[in-house]
Amino acid sequence: MSSAIDFWFDFSSPYGYLAAERVDAVGARHGRDVRWHAILLGPLFKVVGTAPLTTLPVKGDYSAHDFARTARLLGIPFTLPSHFPVATQVAARAFYLVQDESADKAKQFARLAYRAYFAEGEDITDASVVMTLAAQAGADTLTLEANLGGEAIKQRVRGEVEAALEAGVFGSPFFKVDGEPFWGNDRLPHLEEWLRRGGW
Amino acid sequence: MSSAIDFWFDFSSPYGYLAAERVDAVGARHGRDVRWHAILLGPLFKVVGTAPLTTLPVKGDYSAHDFARTARLLGIPFTLPSHFPVATQVAARAFYLVQDESADKAKQFARLAYRAYFAEGEDITDASVVMTLAAQAGADTLTLEANLGGEAIKQRVRGEVEAALEAGVFGSPFFKVDGEPFWGNDRLPHLEEWLRRGGW
Repeated sequence: MSSAIDFWFDFSSPYGYLAAERVDAVGARHGRDVRWHAILLGPLFKVVGTAPLTTLPVKGDYSAHDFARTARLLGIPFTLPSHFPVATQVAARAFYLVQDESADKAKQFARLAYRAYFAEGEDITDASVVMTLAAQAGADTLTLEANLGGEAIKQRVRGEVEAALEAGVFGSPFFKVDGEPFWGNDRLPHLEEWLRRGGW
Repeated sequence: MSSAIDFWFDFSSPYGYLAAERVDAVGARHGRDVRWHAILLGPLFKVVGTAPLTTLPVKGDYSAHDFARTARLLGIPFTLPSHFPVATQVAARAFYLVQDESADKAKQFARLAYRAYFAEGEDITDASVVMTLAAQAGADTLTLEANLGGEAIKQRVRGEVEAALEAGVFGSPFFKVDGEPFWGNDRLPHLEEWLRRGGW
């Protein structure tokens, strides 16, 4: 099997949500696994010197408009949450704990969490909401409950964010395949063309 | 005839260059004129609080890579100039002076200036280079020479930048059709889909 597609995302990223709904299908069409990595944009933005899109004058309004318009074009339900962006540490910690049990359950948890936040307006900063979503994804909630507040998983998430930075990741969604980086939901078609042609 | 597509661009914008090579074909496929507007990103970035892509840590290197990769995919010649970004006041002033003579000549001048800068590494901040390009576009160079350094055309460009800001423009390329804004070369397919469906 060829090397996997790496996919980095923050649970508070609208374009990350749209990519999460599509990236596994892209991988499947080209015989590539997709490795999902939950990250935290806060520390990344600090390094790059950027800010959440919707906080910027003029660009913020356009971005909110484009999130919704792009989602409609793709047929994915989307409503910009009233609390946006939010801190996504709890969801990211849960993601990696579920991933230790099963990569597929972790993906399912991530998709459910994204839908909960961006389609149903749920509060994914709330550990009890996150636990419910993990249960829906079929995760072992006892293990999750025992570890979600622990120091080990906090360290783990920090390590994953550092690894992302070292890999050159500076936004969400971000992809890498065969060493080639792609940033943004709007680069998924380029990534797919790259797989089709073997680069250009 | 339906209303035109408005197209804003800065002569130092790589994605603006890629869009300039394509936008009139999009308009032609849907029976829409395209109105070109040269702008200066400096004042716009000040309002929005952003900076030129390539000046940002990490993101800058990726952007340079993506400019070239996207150009290759589109079959458009591209080499990131050694001086980049540059001030584009002179080119913008020439653009509007040529536009007063003929909208088509102004577009041709803009395409030539973009190619000169991004494909041939010429210095488009140099008025004599700009004059040569205008001549190649068939412009009346005597009129141009008499007005390029004048106060009137400087005021005119400032006014165009202000009008762009008022229209919600915050980057390059930027498009508007039937009141709908689209930002970025990667949104040209969305704009075209918008024309095809009459919105969604």
